[in-house]
Amino acid sequence: MRTQDDTKAAGQPARLGQVATPSLVLDLPTLDRNIVRMADRCRELGVGLRPHVKTPKSLPVAARLAAAGAAGFTVSTLQEAEYLAEAGYGDIFYAVPIDPHKVARAAKLVEAGVALSLLTDSLAAARATAHAARECGAVLTLWVEIDVDHYRTGIEPSHPDFEALVRFIATDPSLRFAGLMSYGGASYNCPDTQSAAALTESHRRALVETARWLEAKGIDCPGLSFGSTPAVLHAHNLTGVTEARCGVYTFQDLFQAGIGACAQTDIALTVLTTVIGANPDLNRLTIDAGGLALSKDRSTQGRSFDAGFGLVCDEEGAILQGLHVATVSQELGLVTSMDGSPLAFEQFPIGGRLRILPNHADMTAAAYEDYWVVAGGDRIVDRWARTNRW
Amino acid sequence: MRTQDDTKAAGQPARLGQVATPSLVLDLPTLDRNIVRMADRCRELGVGLRPHVKTPKSLPVAARLAAAGAAGFTVSTLQEAEYLAEAGYGDIFYAVPIDPHKVARAAKLVEAGVALSLLTDSLAAARATAHAARECGAVLTLWVEIDVDHYRTGIEPSHPDFEALVRFIATDPSLRFAGLMSYGGASYNCPDTQSAAALTESHRRALVETARWLEAKGIDCPGLSFGSTPAVLHAHNLTGVTEARCGVYTFQDLFQAGIGACAQTDIALTVLTTVIGANPDLNRLTIDAGGLALSKDRSTQGRSFDAGFGLVCDEEGAILQGLHVATVSQELGLVTSMDGSPLAFEQFPIGGRLRILPNHADMTAAAYEDYWVVAGGDRIVDRWARTNRW
Repeated sequence: MRTQDDTKAAGQPARLGQVATPSLVLDLPTLDRNIVRMADRCRELGVGLRPHVKTPKSLPVAARLAAAGAAGFTVSTLQEAEYLAEAGYGDIFYAVPIDPHKVARAAKLVEAGVALSLLTDSLAAARATAHAARECGAVLTLWVEIDVDHYRTGIEPSHPDFEALVRFIATDPSLRFAGLMSYGGASYNCPDTQSAAALTESHRRALVETARWLEAKGIDCPGLSFGSTPAVLHAHNLTGVTEARCGVYTFQDLFQAGIGACAQTDIALTVLTTVIGANPDLNRLTIDAGGLALSKDRSTQGRSFDAGFGLVCDEEGAILQGLHVATVSQELGLVTSMDGSPLAFEQFPIGGRLRILPNHADMTAAAYEDYWVVAGGDRIVDRWARTNRW
Repeated sequence: MRTQDDTKAAGQPARLGQVATPSLVLDLPTLDRNIVRMADRCRELGVGLRPHVKTPKSLPVAARLAAAGAAGFTVSTLQEAEYLAEAGYGDIFYAVPIDPHKVARAAKLVEAGVALSLLTDSLAAARATAHAARECGAVLTLWVEIDVDHYRTGIEPSHPDFEALVRFIATDPSLRFAGLMSYGGASYNCPDTQSAAALTESHRRALVETARWLEAKGIDCPGLSFGSTPAVLHAHNLTGVTEARCGVYTFQDLFQAGIGACAQTDIALTVLTTVIGANPDLNRLTIDAGGLALSKDRSTQGRSFDAGFGLVCDEEGAILQGLHVATVSQELGLVTSMDGSPLAFEQFPIGGRLRILPNHADMTAAAYEDYWVVAGGDRIVDRWARTNRW
């Protein structure tokens, strides 16, 4: 039997069987297919693609996204922005409403020559940001998020402060107005691709019409930025939108497969785990991937495609139909059949390996510092680092 | 305004207001109170306490647990075991059924002089472990987990393999039989402290009676190890049990408070976050702590004490009654009132700080590499490292 120790001593292992568990596995052909698919989709729609690296948080993935024509990157933390900037990427959108405390750190990136875009959705935050920018002698580029679906953040264009907010950014000497952005989070809840397309169209219109309204008031609105993987995949028309921000499409996951944004076989990310117990009386296997290794994300809960804490594949990545991770403790998962039918225990010896498809790729990947990259099946071709935390 | 940059430049900040967000905060007086409370409890019960460090994963916490009389430590990963061993702790129980692939790594600790206990719950795993131990010339100490409540892992004493399993371990030259252990996970689901005490008593009996049965068969059973924070806190009698394994009691959390294992004011762990948005029309605040900063743990879901993704405190740690984190995205949380009453928005300016009590301390802490340690309120007295991953 190969042990974890071999892995450490022998440099890069050739097969997943030699890798310590739990580990994160990234299937390269699937990743590349997902990257090309979205790049083609955005070209068809005539919109720039600014991939969100909050999902992969990995330079080799960023390099592949850039090679496929990315118009800059989107990030969810300044940590990601610094990581990309150090590698020479110069066009970054930090798409979370800016905390004024973080302005000094952001300004350092601007000073270093990065075209950094920041985001706001209120006059109070924009004023605090301008104040902080002035204190460190920076001029910061700000987008305004408009709220299109009450899903998360953003200011409604009908809000009494909206025009004053844009005008403040457009005229304050420490700020530069970049345009309007929205995030179509409600597209995650559309029952079918048709309703997702209809919702996306209403979001597109909100952006375009708000920009026209501003232009009629004499405020130029150079950028219109639009987000969410399912929204862009299902859009029929993004006329007027200058860039799409999507992230999870690179890896995909069971939630995205459930809402029709991909097939389960498009999921590039799995967690490699070892069978450490079998209990035929209770019809379940124990695996060494629990709540930390898989994440506690239960976004598929209550949906027709509820996958527990993940669906189960063999070591080569082929889906074992009808199995799921039913419960997790911190370091343990219990695998059983979804319909109660007896497991074929002889297929799952102690020490055997499985791979778990994640509910939500972003949350699962966050527990790991790197990816074992496989070229289909269990053949390892590389190991890629991630950046984590803030 | 103080910025993150000040924090980095000036060494240790004096107040939480100077710390970048999101960050993990540990309240030292509360931690110490929790440690003493459980140590006293175990002394009263006449049982040794082997604290589970899977919750804190931090040497300064381990030192405090040791000072309070810990009879060794429990760990959930070999990474934790190595981390403790490097610091000189020599008595460690890795309380997850051993994966035979991990034996070589475990054997290195034994070689280095650590009294390392491993766990198994099947004959197949015990045989594979013996085989792997032989290959690296080690003699490994094994406990057998008995299943007392079908909660997770363990073998039922009535199982046809049970006696053969214990006998195999007791006689194999590469293995040493340490005793029986159980984990009373079902105690998490007890509606009140009385039923938790009754369940604990049934678990204690299962351990003691199984040990007697083995002794009648001529197999000496030196240790009887028993787990879960609520089980031990509510136990009336642990006669015969040699050691208690508990972890979450060090930090406590909203789940433990909900099931009556502590008060909300006993929770030592919070996530420091910044208000980055306010939307009076939708009656919610945006904070920079989302699913990664708080974890996606929803263990309070469906309970009378459902806390969303966490309850809300002010910067000094005082609970703001009636508020919770209702939803999270990767890097954003939305705070609102639990009963729909309007928030006092003037109390929550952009850039203001809040602290979030976690549903499940273990899962929340895992996203961070260190703790800001406060001595009550927001006064920082130290910064403690954690170990993470596998």
